[in-house]
Amino acid sequence: MRLLTVATDQGPRACAEIDGRLVDLNAADPSLPGSVRELIAQGPEGIARAREAAPEGSVRYDLESSRLLAPVPDPRKIICLGLNYRDHAIETGAKIPEEPILFSKYPTALIGHGAPILLPKVCHEVDYEAELVIVVGRPGRDIPADRAMAHVAGFAVGHDVSARDWQLRKPGGQWMAGKTFDTFAPVGPYLVTADEVPDPHALGIRLRLNGRLMQNSNTAQLIFRVPETIAYLSQIMTLEPGDLIFTGTPPGVGMARKPPVWLKPGDVVEVEIDGLGTLRNPIEARP
Amino acid sequence: MRLLTVATDQGPRACAEIDGRLVDLNAADPSLPGSVRELIAQGPEGIARAREAAPEGSVRYDLESSRLLAPVPDPRKIICLGLNYRDHAIETGAKIPEEPILFSKYPTALIGHGAPILLPKVCHEVDYEAELVIVVGRPGRDIPADRAMAHVAGFAVGHDVSARDWQLRKPGGQWMAGKTFDTFAPVGPYLVTADEVPDPHALGIRLRLNGRLMQNSNTAQLIFRVPETIAYLSQIMTLEPGDLIFTGTPPGVGMARKPPVWLKPGDVVEVEIDGLGTLRNPIEARP
Repeated sequence: MRLLTVATDQGPRACAEIDGRLVDLNAADPSLPGSVRELIAQGPEGIARAREAAPEGSVRYDLESSRLLAPVPDPRKIICLGLNYRDHAIETGAKIPEEPILFSKYPTALIGHGAPILLPKVCHEVDYEAELVIVVGRPGRDIPADRAMAHVAGFAVGHDVSARDWQLRKPGGQWMAGKTFDTFAPVGPYLVTADEVPDPHALGIRLRLNGRLMQNSNTAQLIFRVPETIAYLSQIMTLEPGDLIFTGTPPGVGMARKPPVWLKPGDVVEVEIDGLGTLRNPIEARP
Repeated sequence: MRLLTVATDQGPRACAEIDGRLVDLNAADPSLPGSVRELIAQGPEGIARAREAAPEGSVRYDLESSRLLAPVPDPRKIICLGLNYRDHAIETGAKIPEEPILFSKYPTALIGHGAPILLPKVCHEVDYEAELVIVVGRPGRDIPADRAMAHVAGFAVGHDVSARDWQLRKPGGQWMAGKTFDTFAPVGPYLVTADEVPDPHALGIRLRLNGRLMQNSNTAQLIFRVPETIAYLSQIMTLEPGDLIFTGTPPGVGMARKPPVWLKPGDVVEVEIDGLGTLRNPIEARP
């Protein structure tokens, strides 16, 4: 099932996409929550009830004309991995890390499919990064890798927008500031529930800038795969329903090109992952 | 006014401390929210109404026997500054940073006064850091420094517990993992509203480990003060009611001592800031 969050006059509404129409789940079945995060928190039972309720839904939104938020617009955590593609590590000559490199974005960075990525005046080197996003379902701490997949609600396409000047050339060397400007975490258009992603480690992942293919790899190249990532993170922190995990980007980012390629107003970025759809966001100057 | 959050059988409850008793604000005035974050979001009007309602409250908790959560147990962001005390920079020989060094903790790291800090088996060098915490009130982006204080709801005592082995010696050099283990962000016992903190840059700040004074400084030593910090952060991200900003620690941390001092089960850490109370947490091994 594909789950989305639509911005309406009544606030964010959890929807399922069925045949290109968005069915308001809580309107279809008042016992279902109006929030995707709360639906996920109900576990497989909630998802199963949403699946039954969805076709009966009386309130439907038009996919093309609706304003989409990130599928989970209000996660408690956005956890990001760096340098997690084998082909990217080989390309850059970087040592393959022995443990995941972790950093974070704040929820204020989230936007949905179609919303503009805003370039702040203070950022001069804004780059793109195509990423597979894991959406946490069942909460847990110290989760063993062999049971980790049971804690995954689904997957989504993500874009780890990165101001390289802020990420890499500020005192202290901490990446977070350059990664968490408002609008720097597009996710969507929808999340696909885990039952419909038979193997998250065999998905083509591509990024196009103004139609030109800039990144083209496969999640088979992930150094730390989904179960190992969940096991590693959950020894540090309790994972909660709706937490988003950005799993790193493959080769081809703008920073690594000669000359480097930076995002500019008028650009359009599309990130596409097999079976998870295409996340498209225009670039604008922040007013 | 002192605002607290008490864990009750009915969930977290926003309270005001009056003469050593905790008055349940929503029980005193049903038009007041049950959450400190939501109360803060109402701005000075909400605080004023809480002040009027509080003495009439019929539901009171005992301060000594209540289980306290962090004053804002559910912030959307925990933003942290590193190396932000002038005396600490001079002591360590570090260059005084020209811009704030930023990193983050997740809300799952928060605990309140009295709750145990749990040492995970995977951490071998866990250190203490006394910190002044700013609690954001009015939301905003691109806030000028000269208007920043109007965005502060109040202040609290914080403890930036830090696993140095995870903070400083993992691939990629990102501090976040070592800072965000569950229980590594004690805050409390209460937040003091900004109107009762005439000058946040003139507060003695001290940390005692098992009664021994380990840190002893004054917020006059802050390199980036409250208004500049808010202005800097808000050019990156929209600040929201209840966001917590840890402002960095003065000299005397365990890592800088010879031999180094690491926290161990049975220890007790007290962080004290003039006018903001004393935050006390025992150290235990994580089961």
